[in-house]
Amino acid sequence: MPELRKDPIIGRWVIISTERGKRPTSFAPVPKRSQEVTLCPFCPGNESFTPPEIMAYRLPQTSPNRPGWKVRVISNKYPALVIEGHLNRAAKGLYDQMNGIGAHEVIIETADHARDLVDLSENEIRDVLWAFRERMLDLMRDSRFKYILIFKNQGEAAGASLEHAHSQLIATPIIPKRVTEELDGAKLYFQFKERCIFCDIIRQEMLEYERVVKDYDSFISFEPFASRFPFETWIIPKSHQSSFLEMSDSDYYSLAASMKDTMQRLRLALNDPAFNFILHTRPTSIESHEYFHWHIEIMPKVTKMAGFEWGSGFYINPTSPEEAAAYLRGIDVNAKVSHRTEATAGDV
Amino acid sequence: MPELRKDPIIGRWVIISTERGKRPTSFAPVPKRSQEVTLCPFCPGNESFTPPEIMAYRLPQTSPNRPGWKVRVISNKYPALVIEGHLNRAAKGLYDQMNGIGAHEVIIETADHARDLVDLSENEIRDVLWAFRERMLDLMRDSRFKYILIFKNQGEAAGASLEHAHSQLIATPIIPKRVTEELDGAKLYFQFKERCIFCDIIRQEMLEYERVVKDYDSFISFEPFASRFPFETWIIPKSHQSSFLEMSDSDYYSLAASMKDTMQRLRLALNDPAFNFILHTRPTSIESHEYFHWHIEIMPKVTKMAGFEWGSGFYINPTSPEEAAAYLRGIDVNAKVSHRTEATAGDV
Repeated sequence: MPELRKDPIIGRWVIISTERGKRPTSFAPVPKRSQEVTLCPFCPGNESFTPPEIMAYRLPQTSPNRPGWKVRVISNKYPALVIEGHLNRAAKGLYDQMNGIGAHEVIIETADHARDLVDLSENEIRDVLWAFRERMLDLMRDSRFKYILIFKNQGEAAGASLEHAHSQLIATPIIPKRVTEELDGAKLYFQFKERCIFCDIIRQEMLEYERVVKDYDSFISFEPFASRFPFETWIIPKSHQSSFLEMSDSDYYSLAASMKDTMQRLRLALNDPAFNFILHTRPTSIESHEYFHWHIEIMPKVTKMAGFEWGSGFYINPTSPEEAAAYLRGIDVNAKVSHRTEATAGDV
Repeated sequence: MPELRKDPIIGRWVIISTERGKRPTSFAPVPKRSQEVTLCPFCPGNESFTPPEIMAYRLPQTSPNRPGWKVRVISNKYPALVIEGHLNRAAKGLYDQMNGIGAHEVIIETADHARDLVDLSENEIRDVLWAFRERMLDLMRDSRFKYILIFKNQGEAAGASLEHAHSQLIATPIIPKRVTEELDGAKLYFQFKERCIFCDIIRQEMLEYERVVKDYDSFISFEPFASRFPFETWIIPKSHQSSFLEMSDSDYYSLAASMKDTMQRLRLALNDPAFNFILHTRPTSIESHEYFHWHIEIMPKVTKMAGFEWGSGFYINPTSPEEAAAYLRGIDVNAKVSHRTEATAGDV
């Protein structure tokens, strides 16, 4: 059973993972593997190498855990948190701990091993977003889960261990610190101004335009004023929506198109970089729809965290968001890009 | 002039760096360099390739910016913050910004290119620590600086760009968020218990002993209960000291010996890993000596931050601190280690 432990000084929770446990000796260096052909557990035909599917969008008259699917959701084979059990929150001397209860799922975005999320059509990306929605709605019914975080790691430098296009979902028994910080900040602003801070940011960005990557129908993508990393890019609905689940059917298509265009620009600008994205939405325990505004944060991995960042929580960003935005605006999304250059993408 | 910008939602400051500015096009992948011989600006004889020295411990009758030094402190050639100017804190619409005023110095730990900090003798490491002290005392007199953070990046995966052993110092015009979180947490605990939380942690760790790496004379090294990373290791004075500057002369030697032993264990356990260390001490603006307790955090770089960590602020640690501590306790510090295997150290 994984264990959740709370830092006694600053209150940060950490998952001490057992299912994906690494023995101390496993950190000894491993010789670089050659380009050996290994079986991809996410490819059609290999369904039996993964845990059974939780849901899938599949062709008529095909069976679960068999080929014929377009999007497939499974439990993570090495889950950070496990679904069975009770939290049993308890003290250990001055420390706090609880059992690592939660859900950890993988959303396989396409059956085609050769395509990344950005290569999918708008309709295919919309299906992936719709799978996010369905999984959130299902997991929200479990009262042990206080938050559902959807995220994607693409490329080795971003922490991906498998190449086949996928995103992940982790349901946690507490609202994570980063989400709480956003909720608290947005609430404080709302109490003072009686306006959503994200809506105010969108208005200022649209007016100044120097950090906007592109103004889509219902969304904009922009580089945040205090970007932590070069080319950090947010995608956010232009009208106020506190939750990903408040989108209309047509919004899902618009978001898919906005994501595809933004990811194409980033791929062309940075030569197919490793990246993470995360989806921040209102937790179900927060009843007020007024002050939070859901959004996607895309973080290309072109710099490294070093001692100063670890020690201070301060980030040093060597590229101004204005310069990054101007560069991304100028990208011709129809240009060709050479395929992923994994070895160099993350280590510039 | 670098710019400090505040995230309007969560209040996190970011340094938008100009001196070390990267144009968007500079992120295009660079072919892997072969083992070309390049001039090391930190080696004796190459002093003219660095900014002039701020201080040095050098042999009698040698001149500044010439060979003959043992420890040499210089300004960073590509500073994240610059020393000349005023803060000019101002609003920009709903955003906050100020000029990037501060100090950014490099402490070259030895004249010998072939030795890492861990290879130095206890006396040599003590001299490095004494240089930290001298620089802190000097910079504290500048009232624009609210915090002085000392840190080290060793190895490429930890963000080091030069191999020659060195640590760094950044003086910032605000107390960094990570330090504020520790101060706030420790203060709250003190208000409730009237005891230092770090002292309580030390007592519990000494009693349980399962996370202790080694009990030295005046210090202990241990794996924190809620370690974020495999083999995260803290070194902390056993008796209450709020600041690095409160150490006695003999404490500096004890700390040097404790650091050397701990770094030797980590090097042998993880085959000379890339790592960061940071030094957290009481800011001069906090008058109370009661609730904060200075310490060093060593973070080997054997795992990567991925989307879940970025999105949640939660860390997933695949090695329990108890297991890591047991492994480190069992290390024979006199064993031989093969020299640094940079290419594989960070990517297990």
